[in-house]
Amino acid sequence: MNETSISGMKRTHMCGELRLSDVGREVTVNGWVDRVRDNGGVLFLLVRDRAGIVQCTFDKSVNAGLFDVAFTCRTEFVVAVRGKLVARDEAAINRKMPTGEVEIVAEELRILSRAETTPFEIDDSKEVGDQVRLKYRYLDLRRPSMQRNMMLRHRVTQVARNYFDEQGFLEIETPMLTKSTPEGARDYLVPSRVHPGKFYALPQSPQQYKQLLMLAGMDRYIQITRCFRDEDLRADRQPEFTQIDLEMSFVEQDDVIAVNEGFLQRVFKEVLDVDIQLPLPRLTWREAMDRFGSDKPDTRFGFEIRDISDIAANCGFGVFKGAVESGGTVRLINLGGYADKFPRKEIDKLADFVKTYRAKGLAWMKVAADGTMTSSFAKFLTEDEIAAIKERADMHENDVLFVVADASEETALVSLGALRCELAKRLGLAKKDDYKLLWVTEFPQFEYSEEEDRLVAKHHPFTAPMDEDIPLLDTDPAKVRAKAYDIILNGCELGGGSIRIHDPALQTRMFEALGFTEERAKEQFGHLITAFSYGAPPHGGLAYGLDRLCMLLAGLDSIRDVIAFPKVQNASDLMMSCPDVVDAKQLDDLSIAVTREEKDAEA
Amino acid sequence: MNETSISGMKRTHMCGELRLSDVGREVTVNGWVDRVRDNGGVLFLLVRDRAGIVQCTFDKSVNAGLFDVAFTCRTEFVVAVRGKLVARDEAAINRKMPTGEVEIVAEELRILSRAETTPFEIDDSKEVGDQVRLKYRYLDLRRPSMQRNMMLRHRVTQVARNYFDEQGFLEIETPMLTKSTPEGARDYLVPSRVHPGKFYALPQSPQQYKQLLMLAGMDRYIQITRCFRDEDLRADRQPEFTQIDLEMSFVEQDDVIAVNEGFLQRVFKEVLDVDIQLPLPRLTWREAMDRFGSDKPDTRFGFEIRDISDIAANCGFGVFKGAVESGGTVRLINLGGYADKFPRKEIDKLADFVKTYRAKGLAWMKVAADGTMTSSFAKFLTEDEIAAIKERADMHENDVLFVVADASEETALVSLGALRCELAKRLGLAKKDDYKLLWVTEFPQFEYSEEEDRLVAKHHPFTAPMDEDIPLLDTDPAKVRAKAYDIILNGCELGGGSIRIHDPALQTRMFEALGFTEERAKEQFGHLITAFSYGAPPHGGLAYGLDRLCMLLAGLDSIRDVIAFPKVQNASDLMMSCPDVVDAKQLDDLSIAVTREEKDAEA
Repeated sequence: MNETSISGMKRTHMCGELRLSDVGREVTVNGWVDRVRDNGGVLFLLVRDRAGIVQCTFDKSVNAGLFDVAFTCRTEFVVAVRGKLVARDEAAINRKMPTGEVEIVAEELRILSRAETTPFEIDDSKEVGDQVRLKYRYLDLRRPSMQRNMMLRHRVTQVARNYFDEQGFLEIETPMLTKSTPEGARDYLVPSRVHPGKFYALPQSPQQYKQLLMLAGMDRYIQITRCFRDEDLRADRQPEFTQIDLEMSFVEQDDVIAVNEGFLQRVFKEVLDVDIQLPLPRLTWREAMDRFGSDKPDTRFGFEIRDISDIAANCGFGVFKGAVESGGTVRLINLGGYADKFPRKEIDKLADFVKTYRAKGLAWMKVAADGTMTSSFAKFLTEDEIAAIKERADMHENDVLFVVADASEETALVSLGALRCELAKRLGLAKKDDYKLLWVTEFPQFEYSEEEDRLVAKHHPFTAPMDEDIPLLDTDPAKVRAKAYDIILNGCELGGGSIRIHDPALQTRMFEALGFTEERAKEQFGHLITAFSYGAPPHGGLAYGLDRLCMLLAGLDSIRDVIAFPKVQNASDLMMSCPDVVDAKQLDDLSIAVTREEKDAEA
Repeated sequence: MNETSISGMKRTHMCGELRLSDVGREVTVNGWVDRVRDNGGVLFLLVRDRAGIVQCTFDKSVNAGLFDVAFTCRTEFVVAVRGKLVARDEAAINRKMPTGEVEIVAEELRILSRAETTPFEIDDSKEVGDQVRLKYRYLDLRRPSMQRNMMLRHRVTQVARNYFDEQGFLEIETPMLTKSTPEGARDYLVPSRVHPGKFYALPQSPQQYKQLLMLAGMDRYIQITRCFRDEDLRADRQPEFTQIDLEMSFVEQDDVIAVNEGFLQRVFKEVLDVDIQLPLPRLTWREAMDRFGSDKPDTRFGFEIRDISDIAANCGFGVFKGAVESGGTVRLINLGGYADKFPRKEIDKLADFVKTYRAKGLAWMKVAADGTMTSSFAKFLTEDEIAAIKERADMHENDVLFVVADASEETALVSLGALRCELAKRLGLAKKDDYKLLWVTEFPQFEYSEEEDRLVAKHHPFTAPMDEDIPLLDTDPAKVRAKAYDIILNGCELGGGSIRIHDPALQTRMFEALGFTEERAKEQFGHLITAFSYGAPPHGGLAYGLDRLCMLLAGLDSIRDVIAFPKVQNASDLMMSCPDVVDAKQLDDLSIAVTREEKDAEA
């Protein structure tokens, strides 16, 4: 037998699950040495596996040979320990460890694998730089927090698959080697060896395939699938990410929402043991923008936006009056009860904050706890105007109003929306374990693209318009609202979807409204247009960002922490050292040549 | 309201699930018009959904307006029908349809979508060419047989996920954008925009990642994941295919086998309602080769191979004698009880068959039902030799022996192995619903590569050798057997795996045996070698080909029929028309240029 074999020393229990009720048993555990403590003649090996850590004791006076073997163990050695589980003395109980009331009195020890000194300690309490963590990701993943994150993610996908299975959804795999679409984000391309000069693209989403599956009569489809976007990475973006993607036939918006509310309720219950009340609140996009300055409103706190344009329209403060006169607006939020947290100096810094959202400045008015009022603009206003604003803002002692006036309604709303979130964060009002879910509906069908100087689809060209807005397609397309919906959690978009157009005549009108010529529509979506001509069921769906969902459920700030092997900002994998150069023969096989090469310093 | 809206006409039942017990109910169904039958004044619309087909009747004398609308319906129109479910008259009962005892007397009909004439009928009884099927895959998938295939595949993955979850496996996603490895099959490459001149590779399997997850302490991993190989396609190969991939820590071969036997038993029970007896039979690779001439033995039938080299060694038949003298072998199979199916002319054709497996010829000996013996070689043998062969072959009336003599043992075995399968197929003895599962174990660690003129890893360089064969690594590596195992169903490999080397010292010896210099090992597997130095648990795993598993469970001959959107032989997707040319800007962004272009005729 190989001396590092597990034969005869297989675990009877996971380390982390041993309890007082197991005392007296002969047990074997397998795992990594988490720590070694030498107590002069008695050695403690703390052995760690996925379930937790248990203490194993080696007493020199009882078995010197065994003690000596244990003495050679260092952290991260892989060991198998057999022994008797005993209750610890009262004084030795460790209340911080779930196994802290017991320990294994070792009778046999096998070292399955030795370990070099690791580049960092496997310890959640130690801060480690991201570069090192990712280079040695297999060590980083040994940390109990990362193991919990992976287990949570597993649980979420398991709940999703079981729930949607119960609801009649079929898991169907769609291709990864597919066709490049010029619209939308940049594609990752894959050169074809068999077809020189031609390329596959990795999917940005299975959107077209899932609609084709509905045309194919599959009725209800789900897939948890990898998607790819070759975009410059932000903190919470990865070149490859995972969607829970689904589509249903013979449904309207309410049906899609209902089935997904059931899913969310199940996930929160099974993963976090949190009860979510249904139905979830819904806000139209218009209401979300007006009240929260965002299409992803965070409703864990108040500070809703109010409109004082009517009061400010004729006031003596040029900034307010001018904004309204140029077709703009004056809006405010009331940070009720927190005026004392914001001295003048802080407020001035907030003006810089809103400027990053294009606001030109931030006016304010404050009533101290003793009733004293200070303001950046009150001196220009009449007493009546001030009173009207106070009433509109429901202003009391220790309140502070922040006002943005702008010729662009969007700028005023978005900058105040960002400000309310920033202030809530600073005040500690955005608690991670306070889960506020809601739907945003009735999104605009189109948005204006400055780059292309035309209306483009806000979602995609197959999104159905609201029935009552169909006539506006020809007369005032910018006003058309879509049967599109997003699910929001604590100010983050968890997912979004829409009811799709299933009527070819309406689809043609939609392409016209988007300025597509018939040829261009055919070129880009020919196979879909043909497909729709053979009998299309009404259908709609939704896709969740799984990485973000897991991140929020785990109470984390980065999706990297819920992805086993993530890429860094420049899309590299530090552990695998990729992307990398390849053999000339590989490129020749693919009929491509490299036209520019990265200098290694940039790597 | 939009006139093609589903509003107010949502199904109460699936078409295919209506039964006599539902009679009297007001029901609504949604689906595709499968057929229209006009019975002079009474029109029958057969409406189809994923669950089946139900008949809806429209009586002109009862409601002429409704009848007229129904009369405009053609096949593949999408409709919603509301009406009362009634029992059919005895004479009208259709025993072939699960819903054949009932019909819906229509009271309302809404046409949700019209349909052009489809390029082929949606009918399992009609043969349709592969090219057309795949171009209009969304129509092909409407066929009840294809819908069943997709539902079976869904069920298989669902069973896998639930079973392995119960067994403590975590589903963990591994990257799709990874590093090219020069060994093995050809990689699909993905150019990097951020790192000009560098490339990702799509994974051929998550082998390295799953081992890293074991080093990371994840203990038990499963993933149902896409893999990619840029190989020339055979009938049952696809450029992208799906594996059920798993790995376990702190285990030996028997543990991996036991957990997977549980899975197979569950799949057969839940998907096919077939009971599989455990434990499954096991054959060593040597035994499989000797008895069945294959490392994927089909044990649904006998005709096992027997060795008559000792009898033939000194016989008067030069072919036999010569084979043994040159270090070769003489083997036979006995097609017991089927001699009458193989007249002389048929046997001569079989000689051509074994020649495609490199055999030089096929000798035979036949005893007719009346005891008459005929043979291609008996005249050269003594009576004793013939008697000895008959005894060895357990030969009786109506038996026929097929004999291959060859200087290469492998050629003799493989050609007879192929012959026994071919004969069983012709005799109808290889029944698709007769499920014979078994393990093949103790594979050779190495195989000889003619191309490289050296031993190469038969599985991969991380496969552990059998403990008792470790000393042979230095003395006689060709004899080393591996802790590798394949699971075989009816002569097809469903999956395979191995116990991995977890001891860095043994891994170094393995690289040496494979002729890797230290530099080369480091260059190719440096991150893995480093990873193993920080404490590696004993581990092993297995991967199933999901496409093939589903194909066999569904009793099909092509994996295409269990893949929603497969590629054809030349790796194209006929529906999406990809791969395809892309914009010059896209290539420039990626710092690559095309060096050869496909002529469109080749596309």
